[in-house]
Amino acid sequence: MRIARLRAVGGEGAGEFHRLEGGLAIPMRGGGPPRAFDPADLLAPVTPTKIVAVARNYRDHARELGNEPPATPLFFLKPPSSVVGPGEPIRLPPWSAEVHHEAELAAVVGRRLRNVSPERVREGLLGFTCLNDVTARDVQRSEKHFTRSKGADSFCPVGPWIETELPAGEIAVECRVDGEVRQRGAASEMIFPIERLVAFVSEVMTLEPGDVISTGTPAGVGPLRAGQTVEVEITGIGVLRNPVVA
Amino acid sequence: MRIARLRAVGGEGAGEFHRLEGGLAIPMRGGGPPRAFDPADLLAPVTPTKIVAVARNYRDHARELGNEPPATPLFFLKPPSSVVGPGEPIRLPPWSAEVHHEAELAAVVGRRLRNVSPERVREGLLGFTCLNDVTARDVQRSEKHFTRSKGADSFCPVGPWIETELPAGEIAVECRVDGEVRQRGAASEMIFPIERLVAFVSEVMTLEPGDVISTGTPAGVGPLRAGQTVEVEITGIGVLRNPVVA
Repeated sequence: MRIARLRAVGGEGAGEFHRLEGGLAIPMRGGGPPRAFDPADLLAPVTPTKIVAVARNYRDHARELGNEPPATPLFFLKPPSSVVGPGEPIRLPPWSAEVHHEAELAAVVGRRLRNVSPERVREGLLGFTCLNDVTARDVQRSEKHFTRSKGADSFCPVGPWIETELPAGEIAVECRVDGEVRQRGAASEMIFPIERLVAFVSEVMTLEPGDVISTGTPAGVGPLRAGQTVEVEITGIGVLRNPVVA
Repeated sequence: MRIARLRAVGGEGAGEFHRLEGGLAIPMRGGGPPRAFDPADLLAPVTPTKIVAVARNYRDHARELGNEPPATPLFFLKPPSSVVGPGEPIRLPPWSAEVHHEAELAAVVGRRLRNVSPERVREGLLGFTCLNDVTARDVQRSEKHFTRSKGADSFCPVGPWIETELPAGEIAVECRVDGEVRQRGAASEMIFPIERLVAFVSEVMTLEPGDVISTGTPAGVGPLRAGQTVEVEITGIGVLRNPVVA
Protein backbone atom coordinates (compact mmCIF):
# COMPACT_ATOMS: atom_id res chain seq x y z
CA MET A 1 0.00 0.00 0.00
CA ARG A 2 1.15 3.53 -0.79
CA ILE A 3 0.55 6.21 1.85
CA ALA A 4 1.06 9.84 0.81
CA ARG A 5 0.66 13.12 2.62
CA LEU A 6 -1.09 15.55 0.31
CA ARG A 7 -1.55 19.29 0.35
CA ALA A 8 -5.04 20.15 1.58
CA VAL A 9 -7.49 21.08 -1.19
CA GLY A 10 -7.00 24.80 -1.77
CA GLY A 11 -3.38 24.48 -0.59
CA GLU A 12 -3.93 25.73 2.98
CA GLY A 13 -3.43 23.93 6.28
CA ALA A 14 -1.48 20.83 7.23
CA GLY A 15 -1.28 17.92 4.82
CA GLU A 16 -3.51 14.91 5.25
CA PHE A 17 -2.59 11.26 4.81
CA HIS A 18 -4.12 9.44 1.85
CA ARG A 19 -3.98 5.94 0.45
CA LEU A 20 -3.01 5.99 -3.25
CA GLU A 21 -4.90 3.49 -5.38
CA GLY A 22 -5.51 3.34 -9.13
CA GLY A 23 -5.00 7.06 -9.72
CA LEU A 24 -7.12 8.02 -6.72
CA ALA A 25 -6.13 9.48 -3.34
CA ILE A 26 -8.40 8.18 -0.57
CA PRO A 27 -8.32 10.04 2.77
CA MET A 28 -7.20 7.78 5.63
CA ARG A 29 -9.04 9.74 8.31
CA GLY A 30 -12.38 11.48 8.42
CA GLY A 31 -13.92 9.50 5.56
CA GLY A 32 -13.86 12.35 3.02
CA PRO A 33 -14.38 11.61 -0.70
CA PRO A 34 -11.52 10.30 -2.88
CA ARG A 35 -9.87 12.76 -5.27
CA ALA A 36 -7.76 12.32 -8.39
CA PHE A 37 -4.12 11.92 -7.33
CA ASP A 38 -1.96 14.82 -8.51
CA PRO A 39 1.82 14.39 -7.83
CA ALA A 40 2.06 18.18 -7.43
CA ASP A 41 0.11 17.77 -4.16
CA LEU A 42 2.76 15.52 -2.55
CA LEU A 43 4.26 16.70 0.74
CA ALA A 44 6.98 14.96 2.73
CA PRO A 45 5.22 11.76 3.88
CA VAL A 46 6.44 12.15 7.46
CA THR A 47 6.25 14.75 10.25
CA PRO A 48 8.78 13.13 12.59
CA THR A 49 9.77 14.07 16.13
CA LYS A 50 13.24 12.84 15.15
CA ILE A 51 15.20 11.53 12.20
CA VAL A 52 17.90 9.04 13.15
CA ALA A 53 20.42 8.39 10.42
CA VAL A 54 23.30 5.96 10.32
CA ALA A 55 26.87 6.66 9.19
CA ARG A 56 29.03 4.19 7.26
CA ASN A 57 26.52 1.39 6.81
CA TYR A 58 27.84 0.34 3.38
CA ARG A 59 31.46 -0.86 3.30
CA ASP A 60 32.23 0.77 -0.05
CA HIS A 61 31.00 4.17 1.17
CA ALA A 62 32.93 3.90 4.45
CA ARG A 63 36.00 3.16 2.32
CA GLU A 64 35.48 6.10 -0.06
CA LEU A 65 35.54 8.51 2.92
CA GLY A 66 38.60 6.76 4.37
CA ASN A 67 36.76 5.24 7.35
CA GLU A 68 36.73 1.79 8.90
CA PRO A 69 33.36 0.05 8.97
CA PRO A 70 32.03 0.52 12.53
CA ALA A 71 31.67 -2.30 15.04
CA THR A 72 28.35 -0.91 16.30
CA PRO A 73 26.00 1.39 14.35
CA LEU A 74 27.18 5.01 14.47
CA PHE A 75 24.13 7.22 14.33
CA PHE A 76 23.25 10.90 14.29
CA LEU A 77 20.15 13.10 14.28
CA LYS A 78 18.78 15.36 11.57
CA PRO A 79 16.27 17.92 12.92
CA PRO A 80 12.62 18.02 11.77
CA SER A 81 13.36 21.49 10.35
CA SER A 82 15.61 19.90 7.72
CA VAL A 83 12.75 17.93 6.08
CA VAL A 84 11.43 18.91 2.63
CA GLY A 85 9.07 17.02 0.36
CA PRO A 86 9.15 15.87 -3.27
CA GLY A 87 9.85 18.74 -5.66
CA GLU A 88 10.91 21.14 -2.93
CA PRO A 89 14.32 22.74 -3.46
CA ILE A 90 17.53 21.77 -1.68
CA ARG A 91 19.01 25.17 -0.82
CA LEU A 92 22.82 25.40 -0.83
CA PRO A 93 23.85 27.38 2.27
CA PRO A 94 26.39 30.21 2.00
CA TRP A 95 28.65 28.59 4.64
CA SER A 96 29.48 25.47 2.58
CA ALA A 97 31.22 25.08 -0.79
CA GLU A 98 30.73 21.31 -1.03
CA VAL A 99 27.20 19.95 -0.55
CA HIS A 100 26.81 16.25 -1.36
CA HIS A 101 23.88 13.92 -2.12
CA GLU A 102 23.48 10.69 -0.15
CA ALA A 103 20.68 8.40 -1.37
CA GLU A 104 19.19 6.26 1.40
CA LEU A 105 16.44 3.80 2.17
CA ALA A 106 14.51 5.02 5.23
CA ALA A 107 12.13 3.19 7.56
CA VAL A 108 9.10 4.97 9.05
CA VAL A 109 8.05 4.03 12.58
CA GLY A 110 4.41 2.98 12.99
CA ARG A 111 4.10 2.60 16.75
CA ARG A 112 6.09 3.54 19.84
CA LEU A 113 9.22 1.37 20.05
CA ARG A 114 11.47 1.00 23.07
CA ASN A 115 13.95 -1.85 23.59
CA VAL A 116 12.44 -3.75 20.70
CA SER A 117 14.17 -6.95 19.56
CA PRO A 118 15.26 -7.24 15.90
CA GLU A 119 12.64 -9.96 15.42
CA ARG A 120 9.83 -7.59 16.48
CA VAL A 121 10.99 -4.52 14.52
CA ARG A 122 9.09 -5.20 11.31
CA GLU A 123 5.65 -5.17 12.96
CA GLY A 124 6.46 -1.78 14.51
CA LEU A 125 7.25 -0.12 11.19
CA LEU A 126 4.66 1.63 9.03
CA GLY A 127 6.79 1.26 5.90
CA PHE A 128 9.64 2.60 3.80
CA THR A 129 10.52 5.68 1.79
CA CYS A 130 13.40 7.40 -0.03
CA LEU A 131 15.60 9.91 1.79
CA ASN A 132 18.42 12.16 0.63
CA ASP A 133 20.84 12.69 3.53
CA VAL A 134 22.22 15.95 2.11
CA THR A 135 25.62 16.72 3.66
CA ALA A 136 27.97 19.71 3.67
CA ARG A 137 31.07 17.56 3.24
CA ASP A 138 33.58 20.36 3.87
CA VAL A 139 31.94 21.22 7.21
CA GLN A 140 31.67 17.53 8.13
CA ARG A 141 35.40 17.13 7.47
CA SER A 142 36.44 20.19 9.47
CA GLU A 143 34.07 19.74 12.44
CA LYS A 144 34.08 15.93 12.66
CA HIS A 145 30.48 16.37 13.88
CA PHE A 146 27.35 15.95 11.85
CA THR A 147 24.82 18.40 13.27
CA ARG A 148 25.66 21.44 11.19
CA SER A 149 26.89 19.52 8.16
CA LYS A 150 23.74 17.37 7.94
CA GLY A 151 21.15 19.44 9.83
CA ALA A 152 20.59 22.51 7.67
CA ASP A 153 17.16 23.52 6.41
CA SER A 154 16.23 21.52 3.26
CA PHE A 155 19.01 18.94 3.89
CA CYS A 156 16.50 16.09 4.33
CA PRO A 157 14.30 15.48 1.28
CA VAL A 158 11.91 12.59 2.02
CA GLY A 159 9.34 10.86 -0.19
CA PRO A 160 7.59 10.56 -2.52
CA TRP A 161 5.37 8.38 -0.29
CA ILE A 162 5.52 5.50 2.17
CA GLU A 163 5.38 1.97 0.80
CA THR A 164 4.12 -0.36 3.49
CA GLU A 165 5.82 -3.43 1.94
CA LEU A 166 9.07 -3.80 0.03
CA PRO A 167 9.12 -6.35 -2.81
CA ALA A 168 10.93 -9.67 -2.46
CA GLY A 169 14.38 -9.82 -4.04
CA GLU A 170 17.07 -7.21 -4.47
CA ILE A 171 16.32 -3.61 -3.42
CA ALA A 172 18.46 -1.14 -5.38
CA VAL A 173 19.21 2.31 -3.91
CA GLU A 174 20.15 4.70 -6.72
CA CYS A 175 21.01 8.38 -6.97
CA ARG A 176 20.94 10.33 -10.24
CA VAL A 177 22.02 13.91 -10.84
CA ASP A 178 20.49 15.41 -13.97
CA GLY A 179 19.70 11.89 -15.10
CA GLU A 180 23.23 10.51 -14.65
CA VAL A 181 23.67 7.64 -12.20
CA ARG A 182 25.99 8.65 -9.33
CA GLN A 183 25.25 6.11 -6.63
CA ARG A 184 23.95 2.58 -6.88
CA GLY A 185 23.92 0.02 -4.12
CA ALA A 186 21.86 -2.91 -2.92
CA ALA A 187 20.13 -2.87 0.45
CA SER A 188 21.53 -6.36 1.02
CA GLU A 189 25.04 -4.81 1.21
CA MET A 190 24.23 -2.94 4.42
CA ILE A 191 26.58 -3.74 7.30
CA PHE A 192 23.67 -3.53 9.77
CA PRO A 193 20.26 -4.46 8.30
CA ILE A 194 17.20 -2.35 9.13
CA GLU A 195 15.98 -4.67 11.89
CA ARG A 196 19.29 -4.43 13.77
CA LEU A 197 19.53 -0.65 13.30
CA VAL A 198 16.03 0.01 14.62
CA ALA A 199 16.48 -2.39 17.53
CA PHE A 200 19.81 -0.77 18.43
CA VAL A 201 18.42 2.77 18.32
CA SER A 202 15.37 1.72 20.38
CA GLU A 203 17.70 0.60 23.19
CA VAL A 204 18.87 4.21 23.47
CA MET A 205 15.88 6.37 22.61
CA THR A 206 12.16 5.76 22.39
CA LEU A 207 10.96 5.89 18.79
CA GLU A 208 7.60 7.57 18.18
CA PRO A 209 5.11 6.97 15.33
CA GLY A 210 6.30 8.91 12.28
CA ASP A 211 9.94 8.92 13.35
CA VAL A 212 12.40 8.07 10.59
CA ILE A 213 15.41 5.73 10.65
CA SER A 214 17.64 6.19 7.64
CA THR A 215 19.94 3.32 6.79
CA GLY A 216 23.07 4.89 5.30
CA THR A 217 24.27 5.52 1.78
CA PRO A 218 26.16 3.42 -0.79
CA ALA A 219 29.36 4.61 -2.52
CA GLY A 220 29.36 7.39 -5.09
CA VAL A 221 28.51 10.46 -3.02
CA GLY A 222 29.36 13.70 -4.79
CA PRO A 223 28.64 17.39 -5.14
CA LEU A 224 25.38 19.13 -6.00
CA ARG A 225 25.35 22.42 -7.93
CA ALA A 226 22.62 25.03 -8.21
CA GLY A 227 20.41 24.31 -11.21
CA GLN A 228 20.79 20.52 -11.00
CA THR A 229 18.03 18.04 -10.18
CA VAL A 230 18.78 15.12 -7.89
CA GLU A 231 16.77 11.90 -7.79
CA VAL A 232 16.74 9.07 -5.29
CA GLU A 233 15.09 5.92 -6.63
CA ILE A 234 14.50 2.75 -4.64
CA THR A 235 13.10 -0.51 -5.98
CA GLY A 236 9.45 -0.92 -5.07
CA ILE A 237 9.09 2.61 -3.70
CA GLY A 238 9.58 5.20 -6.44
CA VAL A 239 11.51 8.35 -7.23
CA LEU A 240 12.19 11.30 -4.91
CA ARG A 241 13.15 14.29 -7.08
CA ASN A 242 14.42 17.67 -5.84
CA PRO A 243 15.89 20.68 -7.61
CA VAL A 244 19.02 22.31 -6.17
CA VAL A 245 19.07 26.10 -5.73
CA ALA A 246 21.63 28.59 -4.42
CA MET B 1 7.50 36.22 34.85
CA ARG B 2 7.56 32.48 35.59
CA ILE B 3 5.91 30.16 33.06
CA ALA B 4 5.35 26.55 34.09
CA ARG B 5 3.78 23.57 32.39
CA LEU B 6 1.60 21.76 34.88
CA ARG B 7 -0.01 18.36 34.94
CA ALA B 8 -3.69 18.67 34.06
CA VAL B 9 -6.03 18.48 37.05
CA GLY B 10 -6.69 14.78 37.65
CA GLY B 11 -3.29 13.99 36.10
CA GLU B 12 -4.53 13.02 32.63
CA GLY B 13 -3.80 14.62 29.28
CA ALA B 14 -1.08 16.98 28.10
CA GLY B 15 0.24 19.64 30.45
CA GLU B 16 -0.97 23.23 30.18
CA PHE B 17 1.09 26.40 30.49
CA HIS B 18 0.47 28.55 33.56
CA ARG B 19 1.85 31.81 34.87
CA LEU B 20 3.10 31.40 38.47
CA GLU B 21 2.30 34.34 40.72
CA GLY B 22 2.11 34.62 44.49
CA GLY B 23 1.49 30.91 45.11
CA LEU B 24 -1.09 30.72 42.33
CA ALA B 25 -0.95 29.06 38.90
CA ILE B 26 -2.95 31.04 36.34
CA PRO B 27 -3.75 29.30 33.02
CA MET B 28 -2.26 31.17 30.06
CA ARG B 29 -4.86 29.92 27.59
CA GLY B 30 -8.56 29.29 27.81
CA GLY B 31 -9.13 31.60 30.77
CA GLY B 32 -9.73 28.85 33.34
CA PRO B 33 -9.64 29.64 37.07
CA PRO B 34 -6.31 29.95 38.95
CA ARG B 35 -5.31 27.08 41.22
CA ALA B 36 -2.89 26.80 44.13
CA PHE B 37 0.57 26.05 42.73
CA ASP B 38 1.84 22.61 43.73
CA PRO B 39 5.45 21.84 42.70
CA ALA B 40 4.46 18.18 42.32
CA ASP B 41 2.45 19.23 39.25
CA LEU B 42 5.50 20.57 37.36
CA LEU B 43 6.23 19.03 33.98
CA ALA B 44 9.17 19.86 31.70
CA PRO B 45 8.39 23.47 30.69
CA VAL B 46 9.09 22.78 27.00
CA THR B 47 7.84 20.41 24.30
CA PRO B 48 10.52 21.18 21.70
CA THR B 49 10.83 20.04 18.09
CA LYS B 50 14.58 20.11 18.74
CA ILE B 51 17.13 20.70 21.47
CA VAL B 52 20.36 22.23 20.24
CA ALA B 53 23.22 22.03 22.71
CA VAL B 54 26.71 23.43 22.50
CA ALA B 55 29.96 21.64 23.31
CA ARG B 56 32.97 23.27 24.99
CA ASN B 57 31.51 26.71 25.62
CA TYR B 58 33.40 27.25 28.90
CA ARG B 59 37.20 27.29 28.64
CA ASP B 60 37.73 25.43 31.91
CA HIS B 61 35.39 22.60 30.87
CA ALA B 62 37.01 22.31 27.41
CA ARG B 63 40.32 22.02 29.24
CA GLU B 64 39.15 19.35 31.72
CA LEU B 65 38.18 17.08 28.77
CA GLY B 66 41.47 17.82 27.01
CA ASN B 67 39.93 19.88 24.19
CA GLU B 68 40.83 23.20 22.60
CA PRO B 69 38.18 25.93 22.82
CA PRO B 70 36.44 25.92 19.40
CA ALA B 71 36.73 28.76 16.88
CA THR B 72 33.04 28.47 15.98
CA PRO B 73 30.32 26.99 18.18
CA LEU B 74 30.27 23.19 17.99
CA PHE B 75 26.72 22.05 18.47
CA PHE B 76 24.74 18.83 18.63
CA LEU B 77 21.13 17.70 18.96
CA LYS B 78 19.38 15.94 21.81
CA PRO B 79 16.08 14.30 20.75
CA PRO B 80 12.70 15.34 22.24
CA SER B 81 12.44 11.79 23.63
CA SER B 82 15.31 12.57 26.02
CA VAL B 83 13.39 15.30 27.89
CA VAL B 84 12.16 14.73 31.46
CA GLY B 85 10.72 17.23 33.91
CA PRO B 86 11.49 18.24 37.50
CA GLY B 87 11.51 15.25 39.85
CA GLU B 88 11.48 12.67 37.07
CA PRO B 89 14.25 10.08 37.32
CA ILE B 90 17.42 10.03 35.23
CA ARG B 91 17.68 6.35 34.28
CA LEU B 92 21.21 4.95 33.94
CA PRO B 93 21.29 2.79 30.78
CA PRO B 94 22.83 -0.71 30.86
CA TRP B 95 25.22 0.18 27.99
CA SER B 96 27.16 2.86 29.91
CA ALA B 97 29.25 2.62 33.09
CA GLU B 98 29.99 6.37 33.35
CA VAL B 99 27.03 8.76 33.17
CA HIS B 100 27.89 12.41 33.95
CA HIS B 101 25.91 15.51 34.95
CA GLU B 102 26.37 18.73 32.97
CA ALA B 103 24.53 21.75 34.42
CA GLU B 104 23.55 24.29 31.75
CA LEU B 105 21.64 27.51 31.23
CA ALA B 106 19.15 27.00 28.38
CA ALA B 107 17.26 29.52 26.25
CA VAL B 108 13.70 28.79 25.08
CA VAL B 109 12.67 30.07 21.66
CA GLY B 110 9.53 32.22 21.55
CA ARG B 111 8.99 32.71 17.86
CA ARG B 112 10.29 31.24 14.60
CA LEU B 113 13.91 32.33 14.07
CA ARG B 114 15.88 32.02 10.83
CA ASN B 115 19.07 33.97 10.04
CA VAL B 116 18.49 36.21 13.04
CA SER B 117 21.23 38.70 13.96
CA PRO B 118 22.69 38.56 17.51
CA GLU B 119 21.10 41.97 18.19
CA ARG B 120 17.61 40.61 17.43
CA VAL B 121 17.94 37.29 19.30
CA ARG B 122 16.65 38.49 22.68
CA GLU B 123 13.25 39.57 21.37
CA GLY B 124 12.81 36.13 19.79
CA LEU B 125 13.35 34.24 23.05
CA LEU B 126 10.56 33.35 25.46
CA GLY B 127 12.98 32.99 28.38
CA PHE B 128 15.44 30.79 30.22
CA THR B 129 15.49 27.55 32.18
CA CYS B 130 17.85 25.00 33.75
CA LEU B 131 18.97 21.96 31.77
CA ASN B 132 21.05 18.92 32.69
CA ASP B 133 22.91 17.70 29.60
CA VAL B 134 23.33 14.16 30.93
CA THR B 135 26.15 12.38 29.08
CA ALA B 136 27.43 8.81 28.87
CA ARG B 137 31.08 9.88 29.00
CA ASP B 138 32.52 6.45 28.17
CA VAL B 139 30.39 6.19 25.02
CA GLN B 140 31.20 9.79 24.07
CA ARG B 141 34.91 8.99 24.38
CA SER B 142 34.76 5.80 22.32
CA GLU B 143 32.39 7.01 19.59
CA LYS B 144 33.56 10.63 19.32
CA HIS B 145 29.90 11.36 18.45
CA PHE B 146 27.25 12.70 20.75
CA THR B 147 23.97 11.19 19.61
CA ARG B 148 24.00 8.00 21.63
CA SER B 149 26.06 9.41 24.51
CA LYS B 150 23.77 12.41 25.01
CA GLY B 151 20.49 11.32 23.39
CA ALA B 152 19.21 8.53 25.63
CA ASP B 153 15.77 8.59 27.22
CA SER B 154 15.81 10.75 30.41
CA PHE B 155 19.19 12.34 29.50
CA CYS B 156 17.68 15.83 29.25
CA PRO B 157 16.06 17.06 32.49
CA VAL B 158 14.63 20.56 31.92
CA GLY B 159 12.95 22.98 34.34
CA PRO B 160 11.61 23.78 36.82
CA TRP B 161 9.97 26.57 34.78
CA ILE B 162 10.79 29.29 32.27
CA GLU B 163 11.89 32.68 33.60
CA THR B 164 11.18 35.31 30.99
CA GLU B 165 13.90 37.68 32.33
CA LEU B 166 17.26 36.99 33.93
CA PRO B 167 18.35 39.35 36.72
CA ALA B 168 21.06 41.95 36.13
CA GLY B 169 24.52 41.00 37.39
CA GLU B 170 26.27 37.66 37.60
CA ILE B 171 24.34 34.49 36.69
CA ALA B 172 25.79 31.45 38.47
CA VAL B 173 25.29 27.96 37.01
CA GLU B 174 25.69 25.36 39.73
CA CYS B 175 25.38 21.59 39.96
CA ARG B 176 25.02 19.71 43.23
CA VAL B 177 24.97 15.96 43.80
CA ASP B 178 23.35 14.95 47.09
CA GLY B 179 23.81 18.54 48.22
CA GLU B 180 27.54 18.74 47.43
CA VAL B 181 28.62 21.38 44.89
CA ARG B 182 30.23 19.73 41.85
CA GLN B 183 30.08 22.43 39.21
CA ARG B 184 29.97 26.18 39.50
CA GLY B 185 30.48 28.66 36.70
CA ALA B 186 29.33 32.11 35.67
CA ALA B 187 27.36 32.66 32.48
CA SER B 188 29.74 35.54 31.74
CA GLU B 189 32.55 32.99 31.25
CA MET B 190 30.91 31.50 28.14
CA ILE B 191 33.12 31.59 25.05
CA PHE B 192 30.07 32.34 22.87
CA PRO B 193 27.28 34.26 24.64
CA ILE B 194 23.64 33.22 24.14
CA GLU B 195 22.95 35.84 21.45
CA ARG B 196 25.83 34.62 19.28
CA LEU B 197 24.93 30.94 19.79
CA VAL B 198 21.29 31.41 18.81
CA ALA B 199 22.20 33.61 15.83
CA PHE B 200 24.76 31.05 14.64
CA VAL B 201 22.34 28.12 14.93
CA SER B 202 19.59 30.09 13.15
CA GLU B 203 21.88 30.47 10.11
CA VAL B 204 21.84 26.68 9.79
CA MET B 205 18.42 25.55 10.97
CA THR B 206 15.11 27.29 11.51
CA LEU B 207 14.26 27.48 15.22
CA GLU B 208 10.63 26.92 16.17
CA PRO B 209 8.72 28.23 19.22
CA GLY B 210 9.52 25.97 22.17
CA ASP B 211 12.86 24.85 20.78
CA VAL B 212 15.71 24.84 23.28
CA ILE B 213 19.28 26.13 22.91
CA SER B 214 21.53 24.95 25.71
CA THR B 215 24.68 26.92 26.28
CA GLY B 216 27.29 24.45 27.50
CA THR B 217 28.56 23.43 30.90
CA PRO B 218 31.24 24.79 33.26
CA ALA B 219 34.03 22.63 34.68
CA GLY B 220 33.40 19.96 37.28
CA VAL B 221 31.45 17.34 35.36
CA GLY B 222 31.42 13.97 37.07
CA PRO B 223 29.62 10.68 37.56
CA LEU B 224 26.07 10.03 38.75
CA ARG B 225 25.20 6.89 40.71
CA ALA B 226 21.84 5.26 41.29
CA GLY B 227 20.24 6.58 44.46
CA GLN B 228 21.78 10.05 44.17
CA THR B 229 19.87 13.28 43.58
CA VAL B 230 21.28 15.86 41.18
CA GLU B 231 20.35 19.55 41.23
CA VAL B 232 20.98 22.29 38.69
CA GLU B 233 20.53 25.78 40.14
CA ILE B 234 20.78 29.00 38.16
CA THR B 235 20.59 32.53 39.58
CA GLY B 236 17.19 34.05 39.01
CA ILE B 237 15.62 30.84 37.72
CA GLY B 238 15.53 28.19 40.44
CA VAL B 239 16.46 24.57 41.10
CA LEU B 240 15.94 21.59 38.77
CA ARG B 241 16.11 18.42 40.88
CA ASN B 242 16.15 14.85 39.59
CA PRO B 243 16.77 11.49 41.26
CA VAL B 244 19.09 8.99 39.57
CA VAL B 245 17.92 5.39 39.18
CA ALA B 246 19.43 2.25 37.67
